[in-house]
Amino acid sequence: MKRSIKMVLAASALVAFGAAEAQAQQAKPEEVLALRKGVYQVIRASFGPLAGFADGKVQLDAAKAQLLGTRLAAVAPMAAEVFPTDSDFVAGSKAKPEIWSKPADFKAKMDAFQTAAAKLADAAKAGNLEAVKAAVPDVGKACKACHEDFREK
Amino acid sequence: MKRSIKMVLAASALVAFGAAEAQAQQAKPEEVLALRKGVYQVIRASFGPLAGFADGKVQLDAAKAQLLGTRLAAVAPMAAEVFPTDSDFVAGSKAKPEIWSKPADFKAKMDAFQTAAAKLADAAKAGNLEAVKAAVPDVGKACKACHEDFREK
Repeated sequence: MKRSIKMVLAASALVAFGAAEAQAQQAKPEEVLALRKGVYQVIRASFGPLAGFADGKVQLDAAKAQLLGTRLAAVAPMAAEVFPTDSDFVAGSKAKPEIWSKPADFKAKMDAFQTAAAKLADAAKAGNLEAVKAAVPDVGKACKACHEDFREK
Repeated sequence: MKRSIKMVLAASALVAFGAAEAQAQQAKPEEVLALRKGVYQVIRASFGPLAGFADGKVQLDAAKAQLLGTRLAAVAPMAAEVFPTDSDFVAGSKAKPEIWSKPADFKAKMDAFQTAAAKLADAAKAGNLEAVKAAVPDVGKACKACHEDFREK
């Protein structure tokens, strides 16, 4: 066990928990990018079926909606954490420099995403599938608003 | 909004929810691998600080432990979902063929991981930091057990 924990720790020195500043101090740029891409993969995998459900193209029961909504809300805060201040020129990233030059606007958009995701998760946990559908558009709008300003096409 | 949802849907055709079989039908091998790596990045980013906490190397308060434990348990089921049956020879993957040739053993180890992660999350949600620490080793053992049998060095 001891060895196992140490392996995990060594592997995760890059994934500093909390402030982006802490992350920037501990992670190499390529490690930041790998986690960043990973976070957005999981967000997409969680929200995609929920968006499809709202659009009538995916069938979800209450249990699956809850699983996906809970997952989305649990990971959503990471979306903002994976852009530490010294990771603005990582090769292979679509992040625009405006993330770092307009931090207040970036934070506001990330906060809107977290809020929308949390609202969707609350609806899903309550087992209210109509409320889940109703909560999807705000999440989609939050994704789009941030991507338009802060992500290269 | 409509357009936004469609974009998400198009982007997430690859991230079929639920059975690995469904996923295999919808995703290209490189898309499967991207999601797989993403899931494990998020798992590592969630469990790493918890393992460090149990080892006395990371400080966590109850709120942060709950955030990380909840996230770990929310994403843990994805660990098993990202190995659909036709993704056994994706370039760049460390997945061993035994994942597909010994599915019952693989599932048992994945189930053990999910169970251990859920137990840790329960302790974190209860705000019991000593129980969180006590729950860490079983998660670490589950990671290690699966990696030893099913992941290339």
